[in-house]
Amino acid sequence: MTTANRNATDDASIRKLMDDRGKAIRAKDSKGALSNIAPDIVSFDVVNTLQYIGSDASRKRTEEWFSSFQGQIGYETRDLSITMGETVAFCYSLNRISGIKTDGGKIDMWIRATLCYQKIEGKWMITHEHSSVPFDVESGKVSLDLKP
Amino acid sequence: MTTANRNATDDASIRKLMDDRGKAIRAKDSKGALSNIAPDIVSFDVVNTLQYIGSDASRKRTEEWFSSFQGQIGYETRDLSITMGETVAFCYSLNRISGIKTDGGKIDMWIRATLCYQKIEGKWMITHEHSSVPFDVESGKVSLDLKP
Repeated sequence: MTTANRNATDDASIRKLMDDRGKAIRAKDSKGALSNIAPDIVSFDVVNTLQYIGSDASRKRTEEWFSSFQGQIGYETRDLSITMGETVAFCYSLNRISGIKTDGGKIDMWIRATLCYQKIEGKWMITHEHSSVPFDVESGKVSLDLKP
Repeated sequence: MTTANRNATDDASIRKLMDDRGKAIRAKDSKGALSNIAPDIVSFDVVNTLQYIGSDASRKRTEEWFSSFQGQIGYETRDLSITMGETVAFCYSLNRISGIKTDGGKIDMWIRATLCYQKIEGKWMITHEHSSVPFDVESGKVSLDLKP
């Protein structure tokens, strides 16, 4: 396989991982959503605290987040960019999260998401994840109403 | 050079870029702080808006941020992790930002920072940056008092 072919294949493979992850998030399938999370992942999440270290912490946080919604989660990815090397890759996008929380509150917000991958034993695994919403300096409030 | 040697050298070179960047931020030297920013960088910043596209937008935002401080900026990096490939790399850390704003307000906060690099014409360049502070779900306020 030429380098160009290999990169094209890898790009497609990460794109598929992203698609599968999106489907798993919509269905609140935590096993699917976490299937390519490395054991030593360090995750910077949208909400407190500063960081979640290790896949157990990510799993707990994901399950907690899924169970805070009634029914399915709306999950749309926009402006996905994938940058591939031989063994290291990263991608980023703007993601729309929507749905009804268990307390009846409606969620419809855009977050920024960065996923960093390493190829471990031939498989692309997420070793670092960073998701966030920016805040407004004047009010100190998070800006949940921004749209791309 | 063996692969191991090359990786060690590259790791040191990105570490040096990070050190130089820290020095430039402390000194509010925007040229230094932006010296290895790629022209097509997409930056997710701590504050509004969702994204800054291109190095001109990053430069404007950085200069605006620098000029919002009286004197130097306190900038400390903790838990720096660097992951290197041949042509793609990423690093992340928790960074403490402190100082006195021009309005007299005191800043002392921890942010999460992810930098994604590509080797372009033999030089490591930042093509994606993501900095943020998480928020508290109950209050909707950004959590500026978290410490690692």
